[in-house]
Amino acid sequence: MRAIIFDGTLRYAPDVPAPVPAAGEALVRVLKAGICNTDVEILRGYHAFRGVIGHEFVGVVEQDGAPVRVVGEISAVRPGSLSRTWFERSQDPDRTTVGIRGRDGAFADYVSVPWANLHRVPDSVSDDEAVFVEPLAAGCGILELVHIKPTDDVRVLGDGKLGLLCAMALARATGRLTVVGKHANKLSIARGFGARTLQVSEWDGARAADVVVDCTGSAAGIDIARRMLKPRGTLVLKSTYASAGASAANATTLFEALTMVVVDEQKVIGSRCGPFAAALDLLARKLVDVRPLIHARYPLEQAVEAFERAQQPGVLKVLLEMV
Amino acid sequence: MRAIIFDGTLRYAPDVPAPVPAAGEALVRVLKAGICNTDVEILRGYHAFRGVIGHEFVGVVEQDGAPVRVVGEISAVRPGSLSRTWFERSQDPDRTTVGIRGRDGAFADYVSVPWANLHRVPDSVSDDEAVFVEPLAAGCGILELVHIKPTDDVRVLGDGKLGLLCAMALARATGRLTVVGKHANKLSIARGFGARTLQVSEWDGARAADVVVDCTGSAAGIDIARRMLKPRGTLVLKSTYASAGASAANATTLFEALTMVVVDEQKVIGSRCGPFAAALDLLARKLVDVRPLIHARYPLEQAVEAFERAQQPGVLKVLLEMV
Repeated sequence: MRAIIFDGTLRYAPDVPAPVPAAGEALVRVLKAGICNTDVEILRGYHAFRGVIGHEFVGVVEQDGAPVRVVGEISAVRPGSLSRTWFERSQDPDRTTVGIRGRDGAFADYVSVPWANLHRVPDSVSDDEAVFVEPLAAGCGILELVHIKPTDDVRVLGDGKLGLLCAMALARATGRLTVVGKHANKLSIARGFGARTLQVSEWDGARAADVVVDCTGSAAGIDIARRMLKPRGTLVLKSTYASAGASAANATTLFEALTMVVVDEQKVIGSRCGPFAAALDLLARKLVDVRPLIHARYPLEQAVEAFERAQQPGVLKVLLEMV
Repeated sequence: MRAIIFDGTLRYAPDVPAPVPAAGEALVRVLKAGICNTDVEILRGYHAFRGVIGHEFVGVVEQDGAPVRVVGEISAVRPGSLSRTWFERSQDPDRTTVGIRGRDGAFADYVSVPWANLHRVPDSVSDDEAVFVEPLAAGCGILELVHIKPTDDVRVLGDGKLGLLCAMALARATGRLTVVGKHANKLSIARGFGARTLQVSEWDGARAADVVVDCTGSAAGIDIARRMLKPRGTLVLKSTYASAGASAANATTLFEALTMVVVDEQKVIGSRCGPFAAALDLLARKLVDVRPLIHARYPLEQAVEAFERAQQPGVLKVLLEMV
């Protein structure tokens, strides 16, 4: 089969053996896959991953002789494990993670995934939409951890893929949602689904937010977030924070933010992934439209070019198409 | 009257005018007062305070001709303000704070405090105990913000005054409370009220805590706290964090902690002060004994020496006695 391999270098392999499903696993014929920032981090050494890359996908399995469209959770269900939720599985020290840790991924014609990881895709959800289930579920994860009230002033900080998907997931929880960013073209997508938008340079300095979701992963983002947040407000951290290149100025910013957390009795809530069922439901009921996030499509053979495109400024989701 | 003045230098003033209570204020004859770390910070410039210092006190007011023992909340109730709780008052931009901001404090024979700030001290609570109501209330504040379950593994990090008072406030919420510190004499106080204790150097590295309360106010404390905390655990920040002298290494530590908050979906809860009623209740019902925290007593005239003593390593509460 065809596959995109990362073995220190990212390359297209035209003819590698298809995976042989282990007990309890399904052989998924991949239809489309999405390039995620985590994939880019893998090229920089994340988890020292080697193998077939890719974890956002929609594909087809044969079930009782009939084809069924599926998407798959990334933390693999281990045979004999009692872990029941994606979070428990993500905490298993012996876990494998599709295309990220110890298990081949989905930028290929076939990927082998435990049956228990798969979710059926409703007919009303297109392939283009289904490929967003994994990152949209991460946005839905916020609602599992934070009680957002209908009148809460909620700000999503960052207008990239993660910020826009989080905003889509939150858009029905409150009538007062604002996406704060720097890119006019991305903010216009947010307005397209009814969010207010704010250029960060035009913020008036008012501390008016009940909830701020940081999707920037930077000290600057935390600094703006805490200045926007009301006393007893909630800061949701949705990005991880790179410590390489950390400076004394960063430390000052973070100490000031932590002191404000104490003085103003704020909450900080970390949120990583989320429930696939919630994301599939949003898509099936046509409550979110993720398609404006698609910036480019490449055939699998051109995955290296696709990765270059995905890393260019202002580019949102880049898809790989297997068929 | 006698008073301890900070006007850039800390000094004893033998004969200053007694305060004249404004409308709605009570003239409190101070019996005893406690030196707090915030007082020490005021000497270093905190809030640029000038005047009579001191905010932890027990005293006597005349009410309908009879003397009543009282303690007082520190954020002054403003006439005409609708702020009802200590937290709302602490957020008022026009607030005054007893001995901390814009209002003379309690290291004096008399202090003037709004009647609405005062709480009657039950007869069963001694003066030595009542002087701890303000900092013990801060410990009780944790229980207002965090749901601690009876089986939760709770660690209080730091065996100073704040850590021990927080531990006392939490000791009935869980059967699994540990004070983690460095000082054998202070940890023995914690064992005295039934907490387990752990020398931080003897920690086995296990991530077993459901809740960690950081009373260290340092990046090192946050680092240990996050390593002790289970996935989806709760870190309570109880100290403010000095940003002076912040280093790139601090930033690395804090970024790593924030990343763990995301990956392990932890909560961080800031907690500042707390309800006086809860602290008075603990003392009145003899559920906590704060007296082992008293390290030394000085007459008001020797307050400068008392401050020196309070800043020595290993010293817990130093009291000033007016009578």
